[in-house]
Amino acid sequence: MREALISILILTLAASALAEQPSPTGFFEASVAGQLGAEEVMLATPTPEKARRWLAHLTEEAHVAGTEQERLVAEYVRDRLEEFGLEAEIVRYEVFLNHPEEVSLRLIEPIEEELSLMEDFLEVDKDSAAQGVFPAFHGYGASGSASGQIVYANYGTPADFEQLAKMDISVEGRIVLARYGQVFRGLKVREAEKRGAVGVILYSDPEDDGYMQGDVYPDGPMRHPSAIQRGSVQYLSVQPGDPSTPGYPSRDGATRLSRSEMKTVPRIPSLPISYREAEKILRALGGERVPDEWQGGLPFSYHVGPGGAAVEMSVAMDEGLKPIFNVFGYIRGASEPERTVILGNHRDAWTHGAVDPNSGTSAWLEAARALAAAVESGWQPARTIVFASWDAEEYGLVGSVEWGEDRAEELSANAVAYLNLDSAVTGPRFGVGGTPSLRDVVRESIARVPEPNKGGTVGEQWEQRLRSEWAKRAPIDLDSPDDEFELHLGQLGSGSDYTVFLDHLGIPSISFGFGGKYGVYHSIYDNFRWMERYGDPGFVYHPTAARFYGLIAMRIAAAEVLPLRYGSYARALREQLDDLRRDVVRKRRQAEDLQDESVLNADFGALLGALDQLERAGGGFDQAVEGIVARADSAAAAAVNEALIQVERALLVEDGLPDRPWFRNVVYAPGLTTGYAPWPFPELRQAVEDDDAALFDRGAARAIAALTEMSRRLERAAPGPAN
Amino acid sequence: MREALISILILTLAASALAEQPSPTGFFEASVAGQLGAEEVMLATPTPEKARRWLAHLTEEAHVAGTEQERLVAEYVRDRLEEFGLEAEIVRYEVFLNHPEEVSLRLIEPIEEELSLMEDFLEVDKDSAAQGVFPAFHGYGASGSASGQIVYANYGTPADFEQLAKMDISVEGRIVLARYGQVFRGLKVREAEKRGAVGVILYSDPEDDGYMQGDVYPDGPMRHPSAIQRGSVQYLSVQPGDPSTPGYPSRDGATRLSRSEMKTVPRIPSLPISYREAEKILRALGGERVPDEWQGGLPFSYHVGPGGAAVEMSVAMDEGLKPIFNVFGYIRGASEPERTVILGNHRDAWTHGAVDPNSGTSAWLEAARALAAAVESGWQPARTIVFASWDAEEYGLVGSVEWGEDRAEELSANAVAYLNLDSAVTGPRFGVGGTPSLRDVVRESIARVPEPNKGGTVGEQWEQRLRSEWAKRAPIDLDSPDDEFELHLGQLGSGSDYTVFLDHLGIPSISFGFGGKYGVYHSIYDNFRWMERYGDPGFVYHPTAARFYGLIAMRIAAAEVLPLRYGSYARALREQLDDLRRDVVRKRRQAEDLQDESVLNADFGALLGALDQLERAGGGFDQAVEGIVARADSAAAAAVNEALIQVERALLVEDGLPDRPWFRNVVYAPGLTTGYAPWPFPELRQAVEDDDAALFDRGAARAIAALTEMSRRLERAAPGPAN
Repeated sequence: MREALISILILTLAASALAEQPSPTGFFEASVAGQLGAEEVMLATPTPEKARRWLAHLTEEAHVAGTEQERLVAEYVRDRLEEFGLEAEIVRYEVFLNHPEEVSLRLIEPIEEELSLMEDFLEVDKDSAAQGVFPAFHGYGASGSASGQIVYANYGTPADFEQLAKMDISVEGRIVLARYGQVFRGLKVREAEKRGAVGVILYSDPEDDGYMQGDVYPDGPMRHPSAIQRGSVQYLSVQPGDPSTPGYPSRDGATRLSRSEMKTVPRIPSLPISYREAEKILRALGGERVPDEWQGGLPFSYHVGPGGAAVEMSVAMDEGLKPIFNVFGYIRGASEPERTVILGNHRDAWTHGAVDPNSGTSAWLEAARALAAAVESGWQPARTIVFASWDAEEYGLVGSVEWGEDRAEELSANAVAYLNLDSAVTGPRFGVGGTPSLRDVVRESIARVPEPNKGGTVGEQWEQRLRSEWAKRAPIDLDSPDDEFELHLGQLGSGSDYTVFLDHLGIPSISFGFGGKYGVYHSIYDNFRWMERYGDPGFVYHPTAARFYGLIAMRIAAAEVLPLRYGSYARALREQLDDLRRDVVRKRRQAEDLQDESVLNADFGALLGALDQLERAGGGFDQAVEGIVARADSAAAAAVNEALIQVERALLVEDGLPDRPWFRNVVYAPGLTTGYAPWPFPELRQAVEDDDAALFDRGAARAIAALTEMSRRLERAAPGPAN
Repeated sequence: MREALISILILTLAASALAEQPSPTGFFEASVAGQLGAEEVMLATPTPEKARRWLAHLTEEAHVAGTEQERLVAEYVRDRLEEFGLEAEIVRYEVFLNHPEEVSLRLIEPIEEELSLMEDFLEVDKDSAAQGVFPAFHGYGASGSASGQIVYANYGTPADFEQLAKMDISVEGRIVLARYGQVFRGLKVREAEKRGAVGVILYSDPEDDGYMQGDVYPDGPMRHPSAIQRGSVQYLSVQPGDPSTPGYPSRDGATRLSRSEMKTVPRIPSLPISYREAEKILRALGGERVPDEWQGGLPFSYHVGPGGAAVEMSVAMDEGLKPIFNVFGYIRGASEPERTVILGNHRDAWTHGAVDPNSGTSAWLEAARALAAAVESGWQPARTIVFASWDAEEYGLVGSVEWGEDRAEELSANAVAYLNLDSAVTGPRFGVGGTPSLRDVVRESIARVPEPNKGGTVGEQWEQRLRSEWAKRAPIDLDSPDDEFELHLGQLGSGSDYTVFLDHLGIPSISFGFGGKYGVYHSIYDNFRWMERYGDPGFVYHPTAARFYGLIAMRIAAAEVLPLRYGSYARALREQLDDLRRDVVRKRRQAEDLQDESVLNADFGALLGALDQLERAGGGFDQAVEGIVARADSAAAAAVNEALIQVERALLVEDGLPDRPWFRNVVYAPGLTTGYAPWPFPELRQAVEDDDAALFDRGAARAIAALTEMSRRLERAAPGPAN
């Protein structure tokens, strides 16, 4: 009953929000009314009840990629798509995966004690007693045993290991204990291995997502003392996907690398543990007091070791080729059926995955159902909408990467945009990252989505929040104190399935979700009870996510002129470049301070010039397209669409980025040393990090060439009024 | 034996450092050799052995102001001065003070439990069993009882209480629990009282100076779980000194306010407690989860209350007039005996005070002994050097304020500089704050002081550290990326005895010390053992502090032209003003974000113009003075000295700052809402905080008038080459 009321309320809000909306970008006047009507049908379709039902089913059992449960979930998803009336199929690949066979961790100094590699059963939470859940292990973690003294390495970043070296502490022959956070976990293991460690233990410090961030599960949303963060230790920023088929698809009969030939997986064993178990090691650890920023939230002063604490670890993996299942659903386009708008969400989870990823799967299913309802009401898109449910994302974006590599040619030629949804809901705060060309359509779509709890629209509150964050944090230049806020999408790094589309294929992409306090990531407590209590009580944000997802897909798929816009593109990139420029000044000041002359003296002048050119080209393009839309000039629209598909492909370089040729986008990439976090202008960032002047010059030349080519394509795509 | 070796080493270093020193500022060439020779004698005098001996004596017993022990320590100090050959005297005042008679704190919800108001006895530390130490109490805290629900208020700043109000949580009729830090403790109690709280409990959170900052005493320098931070709860930023004689000296027969008439002491009872006891309250506290930044270092998620925890507190004070004893020693000046250079350090402590303040007293005694040795060797200053050992600083700078008020006229006319030393040593890191006119003499003095542990000079390492901090943290303006570092002294706020001299009388001042990890502040563990183990093993920084103290005094007292220099003055103030300007831009952005039109739109143009004028005047003055020194022009030097005394008095305004007329300096003041932290341009800062346009205009006009007058005085004091 309560949910029905909420639905009515939402519909009312949606209707009132609708009245004030401007025309959607790229639609000829004649088609606006029909589009908005179909959108209303779509917006009215998602419900909390359905979202809850899908999530309950999806999360009944843990469903790790490569397991029988995950195959069953794939079938469940395919069946739902078919039930909604979509054409659906399962596409299977065999990929290299691992599951734990036997894992153990034993404290051998200061006392002998077996450390737990499984979470506590909590009376109030039946899912915490589930049988099918794997104990602590790392996806693509190595089999092996190790024993030795512990060294604490903070977050295990390259800078942290450098700090240890400065303190004259070697990790060679030792076991590194590092906390989760800051960078992708695989890069921690990689760095430890490079420096001679024989094993790695990663734990979740309570400062980062435990009691220091809020009440802990089951009394709150944050990490229980026994909770373990599972996850992949692939070298994600070097290359994602099946490590046995690097850069090519895992088709039947493909040449396979053996494990020892693989370049993106660790050789030393690693294990994740809880902070309750980590405390037993850390408390005993001797050696120097840690640098201040290394202190975490356990109630004692941390030491780096070695001395005082030693462990034995043993990891036996069942590894080899296992089947994974990508599920697809299609709504065929009427006039440009070969062009695709792809809505992708992964399905595999480390445990039950109520947040990660199946809150996304539930919203994705609701979006599919809602779009089916729009089709049912008579709407048909110009372009084909592809719903993709990826498998084995958790291991290293495997399902999406293999498919992207498999279909590279057609995607390059025809994919308009990739719209990603990973974890959809951990709270009420909307966030979205993406290529700047999608800013306008994101903005106008989210502006039509009602905020279920606070009233108004999600868009209003999102823009307000970004404006507030800018006001609070944006650098202040006393010479130009009147700088004003401009809305930009967040930057995409990696860690989800947009990676192959954006970084490998140059396809405009976004990734979005609703955020909040979330401390059960990759633990057994990421389950239905958590979501119902903390993530989305009443299940109101799941349908809200579905509405945005459906709406933006409808607009991109149906607009007469593709709603990619370039007026703010250069300014968005300039903000990102300014961050890099500030870092260069900071670094130079510090180097002068140390009389270090090896530091890079980077000149950004020509690059800023290329951005100026892009700003003019983007502004001209937007203006020209506005004219085409106003004139309802179908022939011109077709020509623009044809050209638009290729505009951002100009950012790709054939031979890829240094040390990681699979990454081919010279503007967008994850940090080589961060994994998750973005490195805009990755070659330049890498040159700055490494003080590599030659790389900087080459990177700047390549970025300038790419931006110039993009400007040229924009100018050709829609010649400005002057021409 | 070991100490003797260190002394020899230090002498060697001092001698080698000497060879490279440029001439001291303001000395005619003819007197340089004699001065440097005398300085060598002085520099060679302080020893670790003596410093250790003085500290051991001074800290034998706790010696709170107004107690018999403190009178005995005053006599000990006077006797030492006389033993060194100085003329010495004790100047006694009767001032209002309080001591605890009976204090108790009882948890009454969730369980009944007496909470401890005394520290643990630790086997390894005999001083922790001392009999003479008062239990937990607050200087100038009110007598009374209170009982009620607890509300947690983070640091108890006005912004924190505003946050509580936003959360709809009232402290009325309740007891506020706040952690120490960020602002002076009296202002926490003041704010709680203003908002209707009936009692206040302050505790030291382990995040701030406990285990999260390092190993805890007795195994390390940081706060033991049972350690209590005593301290004054006077409203220090409103007016320091004896609250029974506000603004006038506590001479015999002075009119006295009764306690209820006093405007700078609380009416509600307050108590300090340890984090071990605070944990018992905080763990039980219900209500909402705290805002994220309010979380401290105890191992659970903090809540604000009310609900879950209630206490009863009872405080009975023995309060009234009690005697305090300022001790003075004199080295009379030869040619300008009426002019004084004052070296002040307080002597009273909340417990044994091995750091606070008697590390300072030990170094101060060594400086006196060293100067006496220089005098013995034939040196005599032009001006009189006054050694001042203040009493009752801990209660509210009482000894120095009453004396400053008592001698206001002669100080205004004749005091050249006030040099403060409070806690001298908690570690090896030299720090100094002060008026920019003293930058050059500070810089050249510290450059002659050998660093005892690392080699080189303290000055080199200090400048290097400031340069590094600048490189790391100074704002970056992309339009002028080549901004360079300039050395400035830190800013003085309040919380030590320079306050009356700088803020009330306009006398150029510095305050310095050697810093490190320090978590025993105002607890029973601030004792000799702590210093010997953690603060200054080998007692090498105490004599180092004495060397700097003696050297700068010798230079200011003996230079033919006073070494006050004004070339960098305006740039130092501009840096401070720029911080304020940035805050204004930030605030305006945030206000625009909220569409709040009440926010101040401050115009700094005219003030920046006044600073430009001061920059020219200061540069011209320095240049002119250089000429006088080069020509050894005694008549001109005498005229400059006469004028120089009054240059910075131009910054005083007769009617003082808004809401606190005792503070008369329009450029330097402690924050009205911070107590310790400085508010440069205090009226402007206050106007910005309160969005008070009228106050801003008035404040800007007064600051401009003061700076213009200062420029004029500089121009007159030493007419530039052009005149």
